[in-house]
Amino acid sequence: MLPTATTIAELYSSALEFTAPARQLILDKFGAFSNGGGRAGVTLKADASVVTEVDLAAETLLRQLISARYPTHGVIGEEFPPLNKQADFQWILDPIDGTNNFAHGVPTFGIIIGVHFRGEPLVGVIDHPALDLRYSGARGMGAFCNDTRLAIVDAESLTPQEIVCLGVRSNFVGSGDEQRFDDFMKFHANCRIYYDCFGLTRAIHGQVGAQVTFNLNLWDVSACQVLVEEAGGMYRSLGTRQVGDKTMYHIAMGKPGIVREILPYFE
Amino acid sequence: MLPTATTIAELYSSALEFTAPARQLILDKFGAFSNGGGRAGVTLKADASVVTEVDLAAETLLRQLISARYPTHGVIGEEFPPLNKQADFQWILDPIDGTNNFAHGVPTFGIIIGVHFRGEPLVGVIDHPALDLRYSGARGMGAFCNDTRLAIVDAESLTPQEIVCLGVRSNFVGSGDEQRFDDFMKFHANCRIYYDCFGLTRAIHGQVGAQVTFNLNLWDVSACQVLVEEAGGMYRSLGTRQVGDKTMYHIAMGKPGIVREILPYFE
Repeated sequence: MLPTATTIAELYSSALEFTAPARQLILDKFGAFSNGGGRAGVTLKADASVVTEVDLAAETLLRQLISARYPTHGVIGEEFPPLNKQADFQWILDPIDGTNNFAHGVPTFGIIIGVHFRGEPLVGVIDHPALDLRYSGARGMGAFCNDTRLAIVDAESLTPQEIVCLGVRSNFVGSGDEQRFDDFMKFHANCRIYYDCFGLTRAIHGQVGAQVTFNLNLWDVSACQVLVEEAGGMYRSLGTRQVGDKTMYHIAMGKPGIVREILPYFE
Repeated sequence: MLPTATTIAELYSSALEFTAPARQLILDKFGAFSNGGGRAGVTLKADASVVTEVDLAAETLLRQLISARYPTHGVIGEEFPPLNKQADFQWILDPIDGTNNFAHGVPTFGIIIGVHFRGEPLVGVIDHPALDLRYSGARGMGAFCNDTRLAIVDAESLTPQEIVCLGVRSNFVGSGDEQRFDDFMKFHANCRIYYDCFGLTRAIHGQVGAQVTFNLNLWDVSACQVLVEEAGGMYRSLGTRQVGDKTMYHIAMGKPGIVREILPYFE
């Protein structure tokens, strides 16, 4: 049994509420090294310690907000050990998805928050602070870009004009799947690589046919399924890989017709 | 002899003035098919006729503004025949760079305006209407993102963390240079592909080490050299290709240390 719509709506509302101060914290720090709030200026690459500091601060803030309101809920994030591992409700966080882009001032990075119940995704938020674009959704309640409801328009087949987003090649190398990357690049020459969650949100928005990425962490994918499905799209697991006690996820998502067509290249 | 600083400043001011109504026209049209001004909403792919219509309307507007103020200047643009081909001053336009992204609602497309004097680039503007980011610069006067002056910070060598942007693979296929694309992708697995001028502006902003693209039109590259050089970066021609009476340009630009290091892969 899933939680009631009332419970889901309340979790959704909380996730949006918690995102706002995290966005502000990240924008302030981003502005400090990119001289202009991420929108303009002299870009000095943030060094690793700055990135770690912002990552830690944003995750700490989110954990405080979550635990203050939901002390029995679990929290899984990149920077700290899991909290309440056996809880039914799990908040799964990536405070800065795309730290490589963030560190260089590329404004497409984002905050990812997923709320799952016994493994079922209920709520998803992907927020792009520097682009002022917030994607959010909840099971049965639709998916939104800022305040506008999303509705993916399906496509019948992968025409040359259709865009496909791939993860960066190094992600495929991680599991020895770079041949899939290379073959697909040759098959369909109209690919984009954004690396961070900007590719995920392009698929959620229906702007691209599909996004395919290999070797993501749980916190990278925690918001995807509910967002893309609530927007009318398709989410497909392409398998997982175990690295020590960590599970890495391979996923495809987007317009159902395109996802179905390209699956054979990646399965 | 180049024109005086006064003349360059006046041309620069005019280019910025002309960009504003073109941005508004494009945003209005973009909003009409993406339901929300390009920032949110249900994205329906614009059909080819809509894209052509917006392209034509924006170029017509820019041509009218230019010719009203500078009736003797030349204008070169994608959609109409060249005007005043022998003039010393040439305005070189791409009203929508990245029509494939524009048509799908991906907000990274841009307006490109370059003003050249006897082939020397004097003024450059690359405006991203849907991202509210305007890159501009003029010879001897610096380069700016919105109102903040840019200063590229050089890098000594291509570390794995350094980002390189490539054009879409199909651009390399155009001249049989796809092997360069494939080889570089394998050499440096931290590449992005934005396709449109968002890659150019990442390099101008110093956010990525370099941008390398093959088979661009004159109007795609007309603003690049002055912008990246005024920002403190390096611009390198990688040669040209003649297709009928059209010249296609291969270019690399970005942080001098990175551009120099990767040139051998593309020359």
